[in-house]
Amino acid sequence: MTERVLILGGGFAGLTVAQGLRGKGFAITLVDQHNYHLFQPLLYQVATGELLGEAITTPLRHLLPSYGVSFRLGNVIEIDLLRCQVHMEDGDVLEYDFLFLALGTVTNFFGNKTISQHALDIKGLEGAETTRSRLILALERASQSKNAEDRREWLHFVVAGGGATGVEFCAALVELLQNLVPNEYPELDFREVQVSLVHGGEALLPGFANNLQKHAATKLRRLGINLLFGTHVKDYDGQTIICDSGPPISARTLIWTAGVAANPSLSSLTVPKGRGGRLLVDHHLRLLDFPEVFVVGDLAIFTGGDACPQVAPFAMQSARYAAKFLCAQSAHKPLIPPFGYHDPGIMTVLGRLDAVCQIPRWHLRWYGLSAWGLWLGLHLYRIIGTGNRLRTLLDWSNDYIRRRTSVQLLRQGRDD
Amino acid sequence: MTERVLILGGGFAGLTVAQGLRGKGFAITLVDQHNYHLFQPLLYQVATGELLGEAITTPLRHLLPSYGVSFRLGNVIEIDLLRCQVHMEDGDVLEYDFLFLALGTVTNFFGNKTISQHALDIKGLEGAETTRSRLILALERASQSKNAEDRREWLHFVVAGGGATGVEFCAALVELLQNLVPNEYPELDFREVQVSLVHGGEALLPGFANNLQKHAATKLRRLGINLLFGTHVKDYDGQTIICDSGPPISARTLIWTAGVAANPSLSSLTVPKGRGGRLLVDHHLRLLDFPEVFVVGDLAIFTGGDACPQVAPFAMQSARYAAKFLCAQSAHKPLIPPFGYHDPGIMTVLGRLDAVCQIPRWHLRWYGLSAWGLWLGLHLYRIIGTGNRLRTLLDWSNDYIRRRTSVQLLRQGRDD
Repeated sequence: MTERVLILGGGFAGLTVAQGLRGKGFAITLVDQHNYHLFQPLLYQVATGELLGEAITTPLRHLLPSYGVSFRLGNVIEIDLLRCQVHMEDGDVLEYDFLFLALGTVTNFFGNKTISQHALDIKGLEGAETTRSRLILALERASQSKNAEDRREWLHFVVAGGGATGVEFCAALVELLQNLVPNEYPELDFREVQVSLVHGGEALLPGFANNLQKHAATKLRRLGINLLFGTHVKDYDGQTIICDSGPPISARTLIWTAGVAANPSLSSLTVPKGRGGRLLVDHHLRLLDFPEVFVVGDLAIFTGGDACPQVAPFAMQSARYAAKFLCAQSAHKPLIPPFGYHDPGIMTVLGRLDAVCQIPRWHLRWYGLSAWGLWLGLHLYRIIGTGNRLRTLLDWSNDYIRRRTSVQLLRQGRDD
Repeated sequence: MTERVLILGGGFAGLTVAQGLRGKGFAITLVDQHNYHLFQPLLYQVATGELLGEAITTPLRHLLPSYGVSFRLGNVIEIDLLRCQVHMEDGDVLEYDFLFLALGTVTNFFGNKTISQHALDIKGLEGAETTRSRLILALERASQSKNAEDRREWLHFVVAGGGATGVEFCAALVELLQNLVPNEYPELDFREVQVSLVHGGEALLPGFANNLQKHAATKLRRLGINLLFGTHVKDYDGQTIICDSGPPISARTLIWTAGVAANPSLSSLTVPKGRGGRLLVDHHLRLLDFPEVFVVGDLAIFTGGDACPQVAPFAMQSARYAAKFLCAQSAHKPLIPPFGYHDPGIMTVLGRLDAVCQIPRWHLRWYGLSAWGLWLGLHLYRIIGTGNRLRTLLDWSNDYIRRRTSVQLLRQGRDD
């Protein structure tokens, strides 16, 4: 009988598993709560209006039928590892012989309800698009305001978290404001606009070499961003940010990039978990005690403590490995050696014409225009589909050459 | 003192007034509930995923500052003609010396609450984008369905209204389904897909010549659309459509294009009104008894009964006239002759490679490929901005040449 494979999640990891298993004789279904694959590394640009959501998404049904993989739209609410069943929100039950957990992570507000209610989150497409509308709305509110203090609150944008997402978003946000305010809001004074970044650590971009961290900080300061190190946002009511040190900050917009946690669909799983709710796996990426369950991408963490960075290259390498391992096992071939991650390097863009790059294998660390060029080419290359590449190019020319904001529509949520 | 001009509405009419008054020494503010101008004639293509919403919208702040016009985002809730004041939803009061009413129309459900609750409406950007998501969702639901009757209900799409919008949407919907279902939903049988058009009159496309109406009906039938003439939708609970004649129709999707009514912001105005709540104007487009108030676009209707078609050319001509009239009056020049509408003709596209065209001035009526080519060129020419033209071209090549649907994302509202 054909073995049934269920892949939960259509991100980098899930999609790579589907590609790896195509034509190997499995009956494969991929489940996702969205009908699209999202190119997450550029999501922050959707939030700042540089790119359209459509430019970085690919409908899963464009891809999966050609892999011979079925698609199932829906939310997973429970995974029953003992019965090999997945329960869907609509009541359906899906059964599997092999399961790939590739559900990724969501924003972690560390249990703070008021922050999660009032802060913006740019981890998913909907969050990024809402953020874009709210940024524009803040400018509209500021321009309608008749009171200087109120106006300054609307014009103060605060980002929590100095990792790659926070830094990339901050730099892009300043460019958005530089494009928009002087040209399109003549009633506003650009000198009243303020962007602040609150970071718990003492240096931006954890994981990068010291000189690159310093370059990023210098660059953000030169863009006019107010950097607050060594402090955490503790509370936010939509108007006042309380940090664990320093005075309260008045701002109507807080963008939260300060942490991720495992997808909540996994909360009912009673297996041992690692930091951030990640699932402990052996060196073949199998869930402990459940050899028919593979964990790939951001959710996986090795029992031994080896590094499992939550980045696209890890997601794709782990997915490729797990698919290969299952194929070897099903074909009764000798098992392949344990998984090892080959770090291709990390890079973070710092607005227009600047980026930081670090390639450990070649002992390379550098920043500036050439790093930016590499970033641009690499991301354009990795976006799926010619149409999306053209769309991205079109929007980037607008941004980087004409210095105009591509996407500036206020959609629903306008009045909240 | 500088005279204050208030323009309510940033559609074709409002924007043309703003252009007409630029540099004439007025202090002008344009008010709209959205921050964008919408190219409405292509909105149905947003609903069928042929075009991105962004391709047919232009942020008003891209345009207005260069005209020297201020922009005010917000909802108008009351117009006080006696005090020359406009009350905004947020409590603000705007004052004027001259007022231009260019708020346009909204979908008219003729007071039927259950229809307005369950039917989809493609008159605004949000309605069109929701419709697109709901069409995709219907296919997903059909593919998950385990019951043939239930599946057929999800695969039956009904359009109410056989005017230009209904006809254009119907033809585009069939193409969407032809693109998607066979390629991306291998679990569905395309023969189970059904599109029906319910029309109150005896011929489609009121206003067109008889042979063009017949051609449109033949074309839609050839596309497989089930045409129901001489009947009106009376009720809809989300699953069963009740018409005033014939048996009930089972369908999970009803798209309503069967009527428009004046913008509800005008409901509090106690001036005499015409059909559909439109405002009676003299032949200088001034509101009766209020010579400082001009009515332009879809809202205007002449007291004498002369035709005021609710189309873009009328909106632009009336707006250009009213702006010119006000300039002449303010400069104490002789008043210009009464407004007369020059009908440039009407056209309706019938899917790929076909359209009907009628140019009364030259006694021309024709259909087919050349009409479609004219339609394509004209619409591309009239879209504002190079970026939007390129985006539209890109999406149209996708649709018309590669026969792929450009936009296929399921956004929020997915689970309703």
